[in-house]
Amino acid sequence: MIRIAYDELFSVLKSKLEKYGTNQEIAEECSRLLLENSIDGIYSHGVHRFPRIISYIQKGYIKPNNKPEKIGSFGAFERWDGNFGMGNTNAKMCMNRSIELARKYGIGCIAIRNTNHWMRGGTYGLQAADNGCIGICWSNTQPNMPAWGAEDRRIGNNPLIMCVPYKKGHVMMDGAMSQFSYGAIESARLAGKKLPVPGGFDSEGNITCDPAEIEKTWRVLPIGFWKGSSISILLDMIAATLSDGNTVTDVGKLSTDEYGLSQVFIAIDIENTFTNSERVVETIVEDIKASKRIKEDEEIYYPNEMTYETRAYNLKHGIPVNEEIWKTVLSL
Amino acid sequence: MIRIAYDELFSVLKSKLEKYGTNQEIAEECSRLLLENSIDGIYSHGVHRFPRIISYIQKGYIKPNNKPEKIGSFGAFERWDGNFGMGNTNAKMCMNRSIELARKYGIGCIAIRNTNHWMRGGTYGLQAADNGCIGICWSNTQPNMPAWGAEDRRIGNNPLIMCVPYKKGHVMMDGAMSQFSYGAIESARLAGKKLPVPGGFDSEGNITCDPAEIEKTWRVLPIGFWKGSSISILLDMIAATLSDGNTVTDVGKLSTDEYGLSQVFIAIDIENTFTNSERVVETIVEDIKASKRIKEDEEIYYPNEMTYETRAYNLKHGIPVNEEIWKTVLSL
Repeated sequence: MIRIAYDELFSVLKSKLEKYGTNQEIAEECSRLLLENSIDGIYSHGVHRFPRIISYIQKGYIKPNNKPEKIGSFGAFERWDGNFGMGNTNAKMCMNRSIELARKYGIGCIAIRNTNHWMRGGTYGLQAADNGCIGICWSNTQPNMPAWGAEDRRIGNNPLIMCVPYKKGHVMMDGAMSQFSYGAIESARLAGKKLPVPGGFDSEGNITCDPAEIEKTWRVLPIGFWKGSSISILLDMIAATLSDGNTVTDVGKLSTDEYGLSQVFIAIDIENTFTNSERVVETIVEDIKASKRIKEDEEIYYPNEMTYETRAYNLKHGIPVNEEIWKTVLSL
Repeated sequence: MIRIAYDELFSVLKSKLEKYGTNQEIAEECSRLLLENSIDGIYSHGVHRFPRIISYIQKGYIKPNNKPEKIGSFGAFERWDGNFGMGNTNAKMCMNRSIELARKYGIGCIAIRNTNHWMRGGTYGLQAADNGCIGICWSNTQPNMPAWGAEDRRIGNNPLIMCVPYKKGHVMMDGAMSQFSYGAIESARLAGKKLPVPGGFDSEGNITCDPAEIEKTWRVLPIGFWKGSSISILLDMIAATLSDGNTVTDVGKLSTDEYGLSQVFIAIDIENTFTNSERVVETIVEDIKASKRIKEDEEIYYPNEMTYETRAYNLKHGIPVNEEIWKTVLSL
């Protein structure tokens, strides 16, 4: 990894997006959102993902100048169509609208269909929290995990985000319903390491921590085995129902690439409805951090706490980017 | 287990509740809800739980004639106080109110504080689905699981329910954020069996499938290890924030028993807003059931599918009740 200054990264990403036909407004917003992910240490969904975004524009999956539009409205719940626009700018617009609805109705819910990969789902959880709202959102994906009891991959790892505002740094769960991402399994193999907990099945059908064995089957494990399988199925079902959009099954039929997704964005206004959230959040955070540690020198962090340390460091020292990927970006 | 007819069970439960001061309306509703759980095969949260309900009434934790009341309203989101009433009747009333809000605003959200154990969370998911709504609800609990990296139990197993209406039987995820319940671990030990997947830590700090070892530490595992730990924390934080109620930490300080909980009930009206849900649900269910099976003779069920088989069987043959527990119930 090399470290590059924000302005340089921003100007390159923006100009490349414009080169491939993206208008200035969306090119700037998309670049900003990607860089925020790299700054926060979510490298896989920051600059490192950029070549795939350009490739998806070239393939016509992402229509970068299309904006989402409302196609149904029922008070605090609205259905939108993403029109295959840029995934992260579409998602930001949806959470923004959900926050507007929450200001009016206490809670807001947007379901969007025909959208694209939102990169880091946490972006939209933090967005809600920055606006004094609890944010809950999830996306479906292409089929990439077997249902419990199955060999072939028919369910998605459907990331789920829940975020609560907190003055010391918002508390957030941002995670896929698979135990490990494909990238994490590959990285462990390349580093010659075992996974810290079981991540999938080997060729003989046994649960294993060996990344090379899992790569032979790609039968990755849902979190909590049968439980995560059920959660994944329900998240997909709710997103596709509310948006009247593609299910994981439908996304798999469109392409071996991943586009045309369904997502849900819920915001609940706590800033303008009730005011006691700091007491609650502080009670929980302090109690968890006071736990008896398994390893005395390993601090127990609250969910998303480490992000803020990474952010501060990267803002000071430059944003880490893989050198090979950066060369690829520059050559686009 | 012996099998007992519905009417006999109902009349015993109702009269025992009345004997301990519960009025007729709540005694009947509470008994009905408990019996529905036993009928559906959720025995631990049906009749088998009854002695503890009576004990909690005697201890004053459950004030069986208190009803929940609205203490704050902001459009589609309302805050209620459970007034330490009966947990399952309180919860049913909350989901009912959430459905009413969903009829008006598309989505409804009720947060309740100072309530009691709702028994089977799935009751309220199915209730939403029976009314043409998607139901999402969760409860916090007493501290019963260590946060990831911790030895002592400071987070809850906080059950989460998501339910989507489906004409062949509603699709539902109903599960705690621990991999196994305390009851399941005890049952495995009594049966001399290992758990099918890791369920906790042994005394030396290793992850294990041995129930006897886990009972020495009671360091049970969250689903998905660090991921379920984060989900549990966020569910508690959202429930306690929205209700301005007790956190898991607060519940632990009240008593070694479990009362005064915080819960969230969300309903999203799909029957009266959009109408395409059957297509989506059918697509997903059919695709999952067509998976290549690991074991040819082990059918792959959609989440909650088996409930309906159990229900049909128990309605025909009588409701299974543990003989010892039934003797205890009769002696109350």
